[in-house]
Amino acid sequence: MTRIQRLALTLKRISPTAQAILLVYPPDVRYLTGFTGSNAALVIPLAKPRDAVLFTDGRYIQQAKEETKNARVKIVEQSLIRAVGAWMEQRGILRCAFDAEHTTVSALDGMRQAISGSQRRGFFIPLASPVARQRQIKDADEIRCLQSAADLGCTLFENILTTLEPGRKEVEIAAEMELAARRAGADGMSFDTIVASGARSALPHGRATSQRLPRRGFVVLDFGVLLQGYCSDMTRTVHLGAATNAERAAYDAVLEAQMAGVEAVRPGATCGEVDEAARSVLRRAKLAQHFTHSTGHGVGLEIHEGPRLAAAQKQTLEPGMVITVEPGIYLPKQFGIRIEDMVLVTERGRKILTRSPKAWVEL
Amino acid sequence: MTRIQRLALTLKRISPTAQAILLVYPPDVRYLTGFTGSNAALVIPLAKPRDAVLFTDGRYIQQAKEETKNARVKIVEQSLIRAVGAWMEQRGILRCAFDAEHTTVSALDGMRQAISGSQRRGFFIPLASPVARQRQIKDADEIRCLQSAADLGCTLFENILTTLEPGRKEVEIAAEMELAARRAGADGMSFDTIVASGARSALPHGRATSQRLPRRGFVVLDFGVLLQGYCSDMTRTVHLGAATNAERAAYDAVLEAQMAGVEAVRPGATCGEVDEAARSVLRRAKLAQHFTHSTGHGVGLEIHEGPRLAAAQKQTLEPGMVITVEPGIYLPKQFGIRIEDMVLVTERGRKILTRSPKAWVEL
Repeated sequence: MTRIQRLALTLKRISPTAQAILLVYPPDVRYLTGFTGSNAALVIPLAKPRDAVLFTDGRYIQQAKEETKNARVKIVEQSLIRAVGAWMEQRGILRCAFDAEHTTVSALDGMRQAISGSQRRGFFIPLASPVARQRQIKDADEIRCLQSAADLGCTLFENILTTLEPGRKEVEIAAEMELAARRAGADGMSFDTIVASGARSALPHGRATSQRLPRRGFVVLDFGVLLQGYCSDMTRTVHLGAATNAERAAYDAVLEAQMAGVEAVRPGATCGEVDEAARSVLRRAKLAQHFTHSTGHGVGLEIHEGPRLAAAQKQTLEPGMVITVEPGIYLPKQFGIRIEDMVLVTERGRKILTRSPKAWVEL
Repeated sequence: MTRIQRLALTLKRISPTAQAILLVYPPDVRYLTGFTGSNAALVIPLAKPRDAVLFTDGRYIQQAKEETKNARVKIVEQSLIRAVGAWMEQRGILRCAFDAEHTTVSALDGMRQAISGSQRRGFFIPLASPVARQRQIKDADEIRCLQSAADLGCTLFENILTTLEPGRKEVEIAAEMELAARRAGADGMSFDTIVASGARSALPHGRATSQRLPRRGFVVLDFGVLLQGYCSDMTRTVHLGAATNAERAAYDAVLEAQMAGVEAVRPGATCGEVDEAARSVLRRAKLAQHFTHSTGHGVGLEIHEGPRLAAAQKQTLEPGMVITVEPGIYLPKQFGIRIEDMVLVTERGRKILTRSPKAWVEL
């Protein structure tokens, strides 16, 4: 069964009055059809998902032909949404679901304008991220892509580790990792590479700057590659020079928390339980007040996907989910530490996709 | 006057019943406050814009303090939007404008839930990109940033030109440009670098792949840097090996079209006139059917901003706008050519910010 057919089956169940769904969010369109352009509208008639049509514009004539699977391509000269409206009316569609999480208030207004006035009322049915749930469970192809991306991330880390030394600029470290990623076939990085050293390690999102690595202090490396459309995401923290006892103790606590979080990953566990497994370790170490974010998130075609691993989240883990487990602590103006793996939920437990070591490293 | 104060003045005129505006779109938040985090809600009471408050989450405690100007920072533990709702009710605000172009249908629903039921009706007033218009006119600081970004782009191009040769992979070219950008202080690229060679040059958005540069054929380089938050954007097309007469004639037509477009840029000209100036040259050369996109767009904190330079666009150019002029032609499976400059609209005409030569280059 194609991904489009599976989606149609689900939607017929959760939105029985909808006759079609209109999707415009590029990662969803890519997931369902393979098309990677930035401007497309995918319409799937739920009773005949094989009749799905991908509308896009003149910039993508050749690319849409080459990439698109399981949908017919229509190139539109003017407004995509007016072409979509005309097509739905022609097919006699009177109720169409759409993604309320990825449709702006203005866009919905435009969609309504594209439908004849007499039929406009009740035409569009809001659903919250209707493809997200399906995308959370990765199929075998996707798991292969994510493992490849994770492997490449690990290689980048292990190679860069030998080059870290006081005086080098954070951005040079980031740029070298990015060049290596490209050379290895990545389309680029999955997010702005974080190289945060010294006191800057206390910034959870410390993008690489022109600051030089210090003689003594932590370096947080949080980065990912984009390979065949899929994201990797991992964080390692190493120490330059001799650490204080407090720094070492803090690292050990974060590592213990991270491993406890990973151990808690299994089918049927709730996301909140994984978060609590990590957080409770830091609580016992009296560091929980410095753990100022959630424990993790799903990862796939996008760097942040569901599920969200945060306190009290009730969603249960299922085989095929790929999530991050990434506790961290941040002591403003002192230091920060974060350790992150990508973890696949398996039938019986878990598999860590990012296999680089995470034991204490002092360079 | 601060940017926030100027915005408040404008909004009091275009939306007289609004008492506040809620902004969540990160480039707008950055433009108005300097805060660069990914999750923030900026509320500006229109009668007292000095009381503006930036709500963000615990990841950004230190960063928000360091970066934010002209707004007080509030760190929120749970939902930003609930904190915003409570704050507005406490201040007695009963009508709040919001950006319908950057607010999803779901988010608006969440905003309504954050307001007490009795006051919810009519509370939120949709405006279409209320900050975009102000952002189109760059101030002196912004023009300096954009000129620096454009200069860096030109340096990257002129340096990479000496390294183009048959057999090198497109991604290596892209990665080297990106490394050079980083070394020069850029935060990264402003979009995925396009290196499209040979028949791939016919893809208007041909991101660099592992394809090797051919012995004979065009190479389109379309790229930009992100420097101090501002984007550059430029395209140059060069030819490897000896060109055919048809290739050379096509290049000359695109260059003539591009220069005609640039010449048409002046205060008071409409965007449609600039588009037509470029398009009519290609029409005379019988190539207009291969010019499948619009002529240009504004550029600033985002790579694509207003105004849009397309056929029949009535918006007039104003001093301080920075736009691209980038006609191109694409002959599927044969070749493509695009030439693009960033152009500042001045009081008396225009100034090209991307100063690299664009005359025919055969390598």
